[in-house]
Amino acid sequence: MDVENFDLVEKYADLVQIGSRNMQNFSLLRRAGKSDRPVILKRGMSATLQEWLMAAEYIMEQGNRNIILCERGIRTFVRHSRNTLDLSVVPAVKKESHLPIIIDPSHAAGVRDQVISLAYASAALDADGVMIEVHNNPKEAMSDGAQSLYPEQFIDVMKKMNAIHTIVGK
Amino acid sequence: MDVENFDLVEKYADLVQIGSRNMQNFSLLRRAGKSDRPVILKRGMSATLQEWLMAAEYIMEQGNRNIILCERGIRTFVRHSRNTLDLSVVPAVKKESHLPIIIDPSHAAGVRDQVISLAYASAALDADGVMIEVHNNPKEAMSDGAQSLYPEQFIDVMKKMNAIHTIVGK
Amino acid sequence: MDVENFDLVEKYADLVQIGSRNMQNFSLLRRAGKSDRPVILKRGMSATLQEWLMAAEYIMEQGNRNIILCERGIRTFVRHSRNTLDLSVVPAVKKESHLPIIIDPSHAAGVRDQVISLAYASAALDADGVMIEVHNNPKEAMSDGAQSLYPEQFIDVMKKMNAIHTIVGK
Amino acid sequence: MDVENFDLVEKYADLVQIGSRNMQNFSLLRRAGKSDRPVILKRGMSATLQEWLMAAEYIMEQGNRNIILCERGIRTFVRHSRNTLDLSVVPAVKKESHLPIIIDPSHAAGVRDQVISLAYASAALDADGVMIEVHNNPKEAMSDGAQSLYPEQFIDVMKKMNAIHTIVGK
Repeated sequence: MDVENFDLVEKYADLVQIGSRNMQNFSLLRRAGKSDRPVILKRGMSATLQEWLMAAEYIMEQGNRNIILCERGIRTFVRHSRNTLDLSVVPAVKKESHLPIIIDPSHAAGVRDQVISLAYASAALDADGVMIEVHNNPKEAMSDGAQSLYPEQFIDVMKKMNAIHTIVGK
Repeated sequence: MDVENFDLVEKYADLVQIGSRNMQNFSLLRRAGKSDRPVILKRGMSATLQEWLMAAEYIMEQGNRNIILCERGIRTFVRHSRNTLDLSVVPAVKKESHLPIIIDPSHAAGVRDQVISLAYASAALDADGVMIEVHNNPKEAMSDGAQSLYPEQFIDVMKKMNAIHTIVGK
Repeated sequence: MDVENFDLVEKYADLVQIGSRNMQNFSLLRRAGKSDRPVILKRGMSATLQEWLMAAEYIMEQGNRNIILCERGIRTFVRHSRNTLDLSVVPAVKKESHLPIIIDPSHAAGVRDQVISLAYASAALDADGVMIEVHNNPKEAMSDGAQSLYPEQFIDVMKKMNAIHTIVGK
Repeated sequence: MDVENFDLVEKYADLVQIGSRNMQNFSLLRRAGKSDRPVILKRGMSATLQEWLMAAEYIMEQGNRNIILCERGIRTFVRHSRNTLDLSVVPAVKKESHLPIIIDPSHAAGVRDQVISLAYASAALDADGVMIEVHNNPKEAMSDGAQSLYPEQFIDVMKKMNAIHTIVGK
């Protein structure tokens, strides 16, 4: 999403997402700050926790306080996953900020089974949510089929995440 | 542990641990391969999955097949934790290898509450175990007190890890 | 610089610079592509060579082919410098692209003596230029005084860079 | 090289090299500290400057003060070179330590032309030397042919490095 088409997106979307490549696009952050839509702010690929929270401040400064932080993996030397999901940022965010934090395991993992495992880990860490792709026919998906869950899987994963969340008891 | 004092350690210890700084110390790996003690092989701070599994091969080649892999955090640009615990390596190891994998969240996290959260995440990821420091009086601990659990906490954490493990059902 | 104030900047500036935080701000890249001003495109903090060249393509696609790539340091685990100047990207760029590449050693180094050393290294690598801060009174500079050269130093550095460039003979 | 075959190596070699994988192999460091041979201590793939200098201290503590530090590239997200040569560590070492520092551009670069460019940069940075592979017939080399210089190239590179070094004048 860009500053130029923000008006259009805002008109129809329930919520706007600022992607990791734009985490420090300050004109976009300010524009989102003037919106009445909730904003998902993805962490930049090499952003520190402080830089991420500062980017959220740019939005809040303009009046919009409905911000959801989203961890989607950082860039490291690692090759076995596309990005390295920094799950330990969850307790760190909860200590430093009042903002909710969700996890996007799909792009970091890239494959369905790992997405599910990382969703369970997110629940165990008391993350406030996950962003998961679901498709009624992943094999025919136009994009990201390999990382998309089947609907019945999604229902099962949701139930288990709830059960895990109850156990960790926060 | 060193190659020189391996005999001594082996005589009294139930299990030997090869630290991350020695993951590619090939004389130590070979010596461990001749031991009848199980070996915990910690991942090097910037080791890829392939390098880690190759290090395990060095041990197995000498006859010792009782190896436990241990993820303890990798070195990245991140500052909010001492090391970045690469939890997504758990499903990757399970796909590539038959070796059990455990997680050491203590040194990466450094503080008790985060150690507990990461232990829950480890169970959710179906890790084969965690390595956690416990102390009957952490405030007086000679080292690592801040990351050590109280005994009653440890019992509680163990119960919850078991419950989580039952849910993810593997 | 932002998309919103591009018109103003373009009117008065001889050249526009797209900072590393905006290397993948595609609306800004497109706007710069429609400008008749030369563009300095700084490398993102964790951008691969391919991502950097692709960002340049976004500009060129709109018609502006006057692009200067600028290496300013990448984000790594290293602490002894603010960023890690990836000087080996110079020969890599020269192999993959026809675009000129300059080095900004100031922000990576942070201190005058290191800036000078890295400027010499840039000349030795046949970089097409360096971006160096000079101040007639660095001690009183409102910002970045510690990394600013004295005017007489700058003259000396320029001479030596020229001499080095003659030696490497490209 | 290993602790076990150190005696043999020491008997015939003019100098011993501790590879990057062994930079924190403390039994090997101590053994090298008892040798009368100069020691090249390569930087670990993810070693900070402090860790590297501390490893040198382990050697010096045993009496051997003939240590040469060698930068050979660190592990980062970068793909265009095998490792990222951290050339800015040269001025940092010169500020923190009295030890000489040399550069090994061969393994980081992997190809002849880049090796030469990085050798010139090393001279410009006032490094105390470079470690370069030369082969009288690189095409037939049993290993590392692509990064080996032809003898006549080596002579030319040496001359130019000397000339650059004279210019930077330290």
